[in-house]
Amino acid sequence: MANHTDPAAIRSRIDSLRAIMKEAGVSAVIIPRTDPHLSEYISSHWHVVRFFSGFTGSAATMVVTLDKALLWTDSRYFLQASEQLEGTGIELMKEGLPSTPSVNSYLVSTLAKGDTVAIDGNLISIEGEATLRGELSRAGLKLDTSFAPVDRVWTDRPALPADEVFIHPVTVAGEEASSKIAKILAEAASQGASSAFISALDEIAWILNIRSSDVPCNPVATSFLYLAPEGSTLFIDACKVTPAVAEVLADCGVTVKPYGDVASTLAALPADARVLLSATQSAATLAAVLGDRAVTGKSPVAMLKAVKNPVQIAGIHNAMVRDGVAMVRSLMRIEALVAAGKEFTETDVADILLDERRKGEGFFDLSFGTIAGYGANGAIVHYEPSRDTAATVRPGSLLLIDSGANYLDGTTDLTRTIAIGEPTDDMRHDFTLVMKGHIAIATAIFPEGTRGAQLDALARMPLWKEGKSYLHGTGHGVGFFLNVHEGPQSIRLNDTHAPLTPGMLTSNEPGLYLAGRYGIRCENLVLTVEDMTTEHGRFYAFETVTLCPFDRSLFELESMTDDEIQWVDNYHTMVYDRLSPALDDNERAWLREATKSLLILE
Amino acid sequence: MANHTDPAAIRSRIDSLRAIMKEAGVSAVIIPRTDPHLSEYISSHWHVVRFFSGFTGSAATMVVTLDKALLWTDSRYFLQASEQLEGTGIELMKEGLPSTPSVNSYLVSTLAKGDTVAIDGNLISIEGEATLRGELSRAGLKLDTSFAPVDRVWTDRPALPADEVFIHPVTVAGEEASSKIAKILAEAASQGASSAFISALDEIAWILNIRSSDVPCNPVATSFLYLAPEGSTLFIDACKVTPAVAEVLADCGVTVKPYGDVASTLAALPADARVLLSATQSAATLAAVLGDRAVTGKSPVAMLKAVKNPVQIAGIHNAMVRDGVAMVRSLMRIEALVAAGKEFTETDVADILLDERRKGEGFFDLSFGTIAGYGANGAIVHYEPSRDTAATVRPGSLLLIDSGANYLDGTTDLTRTIAIGEPTDDMRHDFTLVMKGHIAIATAIFPEGTRGAQLDALARMPLWKEGKSYLHGTGHGVGFFLNVHEGPQSIRLNDTHAPLTPGMLTSNEPGLYLAGRYGIRCENLVLTVEDMTTEHGRFYAFETVTLCPFDRSLFELESMTDDEIQWVDNYHTMVYDRLSPALDDNERAWLREATKSLLILE
Repeated sequence: MANHTDPAAIRSRIDSLRAIMKEAGVSAVIIPRTDPHLSEYISSHWHVVRFFSGFTGSAATMVVTLDKALLWTDSRYFLQASEQLEGTGIELMKEGLPSTPSVNSYLVSTLAKGDTVAIDGNLISIEGEATLRGELSRAGLKLDTSFAPVDRVWTDRPALPADEVFIHPVTVAGEEASSKIAKILAEAASQGASSAFISALDEIAWILNIRSSDVPCNPVATSFLYLAPEGSTLFIDACKVTPAVAEVLADCGVTVKPYGDVASTLAALPADARVLLSATQSAATLAAVLGDRAVTGKSPVAMLKAVKNPVQIAGIHNAMVRDGVAMVRSLMRIEALVAAGKEFTETDVADILLDERRKGEGFFDLSFGTIAGYGANGAIVHYEPSRDTAATVRPGSLLLIDSGANYLDGTTDLTRTIAIGEPTDDMRHDFTLVMKGHIAIATAIFPEGTRGAQLDALARMPLWKEGKSYLHGTGHGVGFFLNVHEGPQSIRLNDTHAPLTPGMLTSNEPGLYLAGRYGIRCENLVLTVEDMTTEHGRFYAFETVTLCPFDRSLFELESMTDDEIQWVDNYHTMVYDRLSPALDDNERAWLREATKSLLILE
Repeated sequence: MANHTDPAAIRSRIDSLRAIMKEAGVSAVIIPRTDPHLSEYISSHWHVVRFFSGFTGSAATMVVTLDKALLWTDSRYFLQASEQLEGTGIELMKEGLPSTPSVNSYLVSTLAKGDTVAIDGNLISIEGEATLRGELSRAGLKLDTSFAPVDRVWTDRPALPADEVFIHPVTVAGEEASSKIAKILAEAASQGASSAFISALDEIAWILNIRSSDVPCNPVATSFLYLAPEGSTLFIDACKVTPAVAEVLADCGVTVKPYGDVASTLAALPADARVLLSATQSAATLAAVLGDRAVTGKSPVAMLKAVKNPVQIAGIHNAMVRDGVAMVRSLMRIEALVAAGKEFTETDVADILLDERRKGEGFFDLSFGTIAGYGANGAIVHYEPSRDTAATVRPGSLLLIDSGANYLDGTTDLTRTIAIGEPTDDMRHDFTLVMKGHIAIATAIFPEGTRGAQLDALARMPLWKEGKSYLHGTGHGVGFFLNVHEGPQSIRLNDTHAPLTPGMLTSNEPGLYLAGRYGIRCENLVLTVEDMTTEHGRFYAFETVTLCPFDRSLFELESMTDDEIQWVDNYHTMVYDRLSPALDDNERAWLREATKSLLILE
């Protein structure tokens, strides 16, 4: 299991926090796992939850009261969290189970009237703060959004990132920053605002065609962006902006100010300013600074960014070839290790993948930490192996590999589940159920306006029919040389109200996790494309763009329809056709074998 | 086409309305098609939209401004409305099309600042009024909820219904009113209220185990109900309550007051009363009367009423046998008319169905006006034939029959599409696509917590894959000897956030409508039932309870999977097994033929 912090150190940090809480008259503090940009992936400076709990997962909220400490996380991390919290005294709160109260309900039901709850107002959205404030106030509780105890306890806290910003060329990005700014201001105007304030780091990177390395695997630059017809301002530390970059920004009307100046600059805007802020992606503190000048609405960027332009789509197809080649070479190396009876671990698998991906043109970084989970570890949904505790990969179970990269011309994310040695009938049956769901999404056709939540059950039904299920989403949006998770679309149980629109890139990743046994996930990325227009309207489809064979030994043909078998064969033919020109003879022969028809048995 | 009112009369009524609007300084009046109970089906007294427009569909909102008259309705009624509005000068606003503004947006974009919009506050929900008021106020428009011009124009307006109330025996209803009242008050308490006010007529009928005949096909009694621990009050006109019924009500702590006393009684409640009102099912006027004493929330009745108890479920199964027998006899009579070359019309079909259903034990009334649409009329989704314009049924097209009844022990609703003469290949193909969707819902298995919106696309995907679709919902809740449409669950594109729960009765009715050609719909009712519990949780399934054969001549076997063919065969076997004991030899032979395996070709 990854990165265990000494439980005694955790206990002592929480005790120090409680001492400050008592001083300040605070009965409970909420610690969200995010940054002032409400990011999912964060730089080391913002790993406050990790500091106070030892938990390393990517979704968590911690609550510390005077006598209890609790950590909420979702089903992907139940197993990991229960291991990492062991001995810390922190109680695991399993989100999504009917018996688990929400953070807000927990506070309301356990605190006494008149108690004060504290949260850093920079780490909660405008909408989140309004909901929290309302629920607490109805229960007679107070909310303090200015409590800032972390620096006093975390004395060796890392500084903010200082990496340089670089320009993402428009020949790859496909659209000038000035064109994007004009569209965003038009959208802001349609929401009743004359300017727009952007907090989300991936939105800023996309708008300005800039990138940096501030967050591991997320090529963003720590900054805020104020867009206005009379001129725009990027709030970013001077050390990150070279004169050359400053010049490119100036060309599209963007001047640079220090990151720390954002609040004072917003405070100084004229009284009649009308600034659009995303209710879910901007921090409560900034809306408070703007007061009546804030127009809270939906992000004016999310839909624009999600719909990839033709230059980006061409880039994605090219990046997929390089990524597929790296995957083929990695799978061959893993297969060879197994065949030779060599001892190797999950981290060796991750190393092989990184080694092969690095050779690809335009490789920048991984798009997230590689998940390589063997056997029971594969059932820990977001398991990331660490060198000291990684399991040995040996014949007898399944190896789940979820990985991806950021190339200058596209972001990849795929999952393959492979049998190490001869798979059991159960493994083949379960894998095939997951693939049936994957194929149902891949072959879906749907009218304009359809949201991902409407399609989600297609991926789950083959599992549901056998009393099996997975609790994570079936699909998330994917950035372009940007964050591997982006909105607004998704394919999930709950509706995000964003229609699947041609040009959107989304993952298709049903799975099945049998605690203590094995995990299965089958993931490709799909582009939403135009399909047909009839008397009943416009219809869209998904084009699968990821290029990597599935493990033929895991298909149970008896459970598949002819159409499903045909889909796998067609997909494999496409994989071979697109990857083989980039492979040597030996690799090509391996891929030929790996992509032959499912109907050809050994 | 049904019931054409003289367009000149419509124009003159609108002119009279405009004269009163001018007098009162009102620039636009909104006329919802509902009653003070926000019912979908209404008694003749409340057919104000029909009076001012001639439109007879079950969903409509009319707007009259000083120079325009407009009527919004949904896709089920586009064809019907365009026919019925012809010559009236009323503009049809097609709801759900991207180009159609909502009523509120239309008013905001066409009226001038300072203008007044009027609506009867008894005919809009608390939530609807709040939204309307907010949108108008942001645009500088005023809202008047006390404008009541209808009686001045509609001089021969029908009186409120005066039919007697009768008791629905607990041996059939399965639960005492006192037990239901206790549950509702507990639910109200959980929402922070000490009493509950119920406006919805079907909720009142269900709670008190009373029925009447106030609304065609909806066995409800026009009334309001106030429930409180210290004693409850039914507001209902005295002529409707016999001493015997009053006694039964008194036994469960319910006293009777005149219908018209509701506002003054609520106004006189103590200042510390906390009365729960459904935000969507109670009228704005009553919340205004209660002021701070109103706790607006969700209906405390809807989930309780939707989940049928074992006595009700047994009743439903019995009622389905009687309804199925009536359907078999009706289908035989229709088939005989066709075979004999007799001339008959759509209304003759409706008459046959009524004639056969009437013979069933416990028959009370139809549960909605029978839809019998031949050929192009079948493509008008909620077409109801009228005697003077009904189409002749003759070989060469499809006949769509959507019908149902209220029996004392259950409400039925089914649709069958039958070929008159030899069907074309297109008809068979389209019918089979619709059946594939129907079967996908019928065979779905899903975890606890699943909402209908998650399953909806399963019914649509076979059509979508060919660029076909239908715009109505796939399924609606069904009452028990009550309204054929009830909430909270549904199977629709849009989420109603109500989980499908064991005991719920819901329709499964995908369709396809080809304007000018034919319509297809295949509808059975399904009960949500427990299926299995595994390490992944509890799983539910649907049990199909409607008993009537589908037209075997319309199945295109080449488009069906083995499992789909097997489902139809199994369903037909069940239909035969359950209905045949109630049939005579001749009928039994017909049903044997109608339910034999699809694989047995002539």
